[in-house]
Amino acid sequence: MYDVAVIGAGPGGYVAAIRCAQLGLRTICIDDREKDGKAALGGTCLNVGCIPSKALLESSEHFEKAKLDFALHGISTGEMSIDLAVMQKRKQQIVDAHTSGIAFLFRKNGVESMLGRARIASAGESCSIEVSGKRIETAHVIIATGSSPRTIEGIPFGEKIVDSTGALAFRAIPEKLGIVGAGVIGLELGSIWRRLGSDVTLFDALPDFLPLADQSISKEALRIFRKQSGWRIRLGTRLISAEEHEDGVAVKFEENGKAVEEKFERLIVAVGRTPNSQDIAHPSLNLDIDERGFIAVDERCKTSLKNVYAIGDVAGGAMLAHKASEEGVMVAESIAGSKPVHDASLVPNVIYTDPEIAWVGKTESQLRKEGIEYRIGQFPFSANGRARVIGSAQGFVKMLAEADTDRLLGVHIIGPQASELISEAVLSLAFSASSEDIGCTIHAHPTLSEALREAALAVTARALHI
Amino acid sequence: MYDVAVIGAGPGGYVAAIRCAQLGLRTICIDDREKDGKAALGGTCLNVGCIPSKALLESSEHFEKAKLDFALHGISTGEMSIDLAVMQKRKQQIVDAHTSGIAFLFRKNGVESMLGRARIASAGESCSIEVSGKRIETAHVIIATGSSPRTIEGIPFGEKIVDSTGALAFRAIPEKLGIVGAGVIGLELGSIWRRLGSDVTLFDALPDFLPLADQSISKEALRIFRKQSGWRIRLGTRLISAEEHEDGVAVKFEENGKAVEEKFERLIVAVGRTPNSQDIAHPSLNLDIDERGFIAVDERCKTSLKNVYAIGDVAGGAMLAHKASEEGVMVAESIAGSKPVHDASLVPNVIYTDPEIAWVGKTESQLRKEGIEYRIGQFPFSANGRARVIGSAQGFVKMLAEADTDRLLGVHIIGPQASELISEAVLSLAFSASSEDIGCTIHAHPTLSEALREAALAVTARALHI
Repeated sequence: MYDVAVIGAGPGGYVAAIRCAQLGLRTICIDDREKDGKAALGGTCLNVGCIPSKALLESSEHFEKAKLDFALHGISTGEMSIDLAVMQKRKQQIVDAHTSGIAFLFRKNGVESMLGRARIASAGESCSIEVSGKRIETAHVIIATGSSPRTIEGIPFGEKIVDSTGALAFRAIPEKLGIVGAGVIGLELGSIWRRLGSDVTLFDALPDFLPLADQSISKEALRIFRKQSGWRIRLGTRLISAEEHEDGVAVKFEENGKAVEEKFERLIVAVGRTPNSQDIAHPSLNLDIDERGFIAVDERCKTSLKNVYAIGDVAGGAMLAHKASEEGVMVAESIAGSKPVHDASLVPNVIYTDPEIAWVGKTESQLRKEGIEYRIGQFPFSANGRARVIGSAQGFVKMLAEADTDRLLGVHIIGPQASELISEAVLSLAFSASSEDIGCTIHAHPTLSEALREAALAVTARALHI
Repeated sequence: MYDVAVIGAGPGGYVAAIRCAQLGLRTICIDDREKDGKAALGGTCLNVGCIPSKALLESSEHFEKAKLDFALHGISTGEMSIDLAVMQKRKQQIVDAHTSGIAFLFRKNGVESMLGRARIASAGESCSIEVSGKRIETAHVIIATGSSPRTIEGIPFGEKIVDSTGALAFRAIPEKLGIVGAGVIGLELGSIWRRLGSDVTLFDALPDFLPLADQSISKEALRIFRKQSGWRIRLGTRLISAEEHEDGVAVKFEENGKAVEEKFERLIVAVGRTPNSQDIAHPSLNLDIDERGFIAVDERCKTSLKNVYAIGDVAGGAMLAHKASEEGVMVAESIAGSKPVHDASLVPNVIYTDPEIAWVGKTESQLRKEGIEYRIGQFPFSANGRARVIGSAQGFVKMLAEADTDRLLGVHIIGPQASELISEAVLSLAFSASSEDIGCTIHAHPTLSEALREAALAVTARALHI
């Protein structure tokens, strides 16, 4: 008899399991991703998502920077070349180190790990789970099964038409690469191969670029990306069909009312992800799942079944690793008897393009929709010393503060290290900080973080360096 | 008649001048650094300090990373070479862009700029200043004359024995480079030339490395640096003499009680900086200057003379650009009638080595000395996903929190992007945050900033990934 059975060992599940064990709960974590006869821990994020993509983004960034910028520094490299097998091996070593790191943490904290596909057989005061014919009795269940790449009807994945997993495993750099979907995943995968030399065409059915980001960020991002060599970004382009042929993928799409056909060496389909909620509980239990496949949960991640929780991608909300982990910790602490809350408005978004994009809180259009009066402070990285020193001075920091109270409502960054700079902004929002609070706080010189302070000062027209 | 005359256009003076002008004060800023017949703005920081050093650190980091790490990424280069003239030109262009940027800000805000050496002739309800025979009448004076490299008696600077300014202007990469002084400046300058291929020997008279940093940070830094190729760090080594010869610099020093002699191609003397307080006011005014040459000021930067303020290096305290700017803003706002305060305990320290080092607040030894009970939370970058992905996983984050209240008292970082990560820590201290506050705040995945959260969780033994 376990206290907690966690289904799924991704960043939601494994973190929940560790926290449960830390709190003294007897915990088992079940996952059906296999490696060497054991459960491969880490889920999508570690195995085929955040971590391997960032590894290739890092490698490809080095290659592009060396090609484009080294001459400015007075550094000559001679002829450069890429051994993709070595680059992929480095990626895989990083992934393997991470997954065995989690196995170590499981052992250290006393979490049991099990390989298999789990299904909830009964729920209530105590629950039971079936895993490959075995039955596990547990007081609580945490469903953390994540999500899978969405497919487009009529366009099956194959050797040349691939999802994000396939796109991270190319064994040759495609000369001509098509990507359907200009979201976070499409942009990051496209960045990798574009930097390594692919001619990348990004299609998106929507006319607006990055519609969830603040509009001025989206606009700036599109402007910057359109100037980068190797990108073609074709918005408002509806895919009609895609077919694998001997010599590549034939793609038909509608653009400006016309049907166009183009051939690519590879096509990545990155049109979002669907929750892994199929067959997660015996049908007789009537687990409440919404029309889009997300398991219905309340603000404490409780499902419709007693003592069954769902966290992360499968439970809806932002499909982000750190949101899943956060919910994992919250549920673990709930089960252990405390009453933590998790404020979904404080979940930062990050896109690891160059420049990076990150934001937290509300966008201008959200504030307008909600009728909240606000002031804007904006500061460009072109006026930031360190950004100029590192030769990465595109983009800006934009802060939105409530007009009456000066309380920060949203912070939006496009620029170098945006992914790291956003952490100060998240903390500020968590503290209900005013723009003046940030403006009054000393920031080391020369750092990129000074741009946050200047943007905060700009809210009340007090920026010093613009 | 001016409202404010600022003496010195460094990061203290120019920022003070801009803020004064923003607040409607008629402001003039006087500096004796000349370029093309005008005052060269920006002081030591922009012209021969922070900015040019970071430019060369950036260039040299690219060179070293390409040499050491590209093969791991599967990137091959041909024979690499450095054109130091191009590297120096890039540095100078960045410096020039910055100084003309300040000239632009002066024009935009209506600050007058004047070239010349200024001396306060009278102080009181109104003050007067002499500049190259002219007299300027002003209601207030802000002294922001900064500091200069300290010399060692008997060792004059020359062609081969240089100060930090000379060390940033080498026209060839010295094969064998000696540096006297293992402080921030010695370490940063040494890093530049070491990465570019110099064999660098760092001498310091003190037996302890980085004595102002938290001891575990200093220890880790020394351990890491000692493994980097090109460094030799010789602590507890007292310099006896240094002489320029045709073929280099002959240096005599005492090490372990023995006199040793060694020859270097160049020798950098980086043994601290002395305040530029000489002849700043007419002797009859009796401006209060302490025995070390710092102008005596109160917590609002008021000197012993009515309506005369001193800020930045010349006023003592941390010799840091951002501390000077902060005091500049404070004094400007004071003169304009508000009562701002500046909390010196919230000034972050940064060392731009690889890995970077940054801290804010108290060290363990300070807390012990003050008899404050504390708890420690520490998290290594080797357990942080992004650090591993970028191949820069040395070092750690260490948090010190008051035992009773959990209030954060100090945050110490050695690791990638420590200079940027420290901003969240400064804000935390400014908000009197507890370690739990940081631990409860969601941090984007995968980012280096997650290491801060884990260190915060570790304060109460709740770290997830260690």
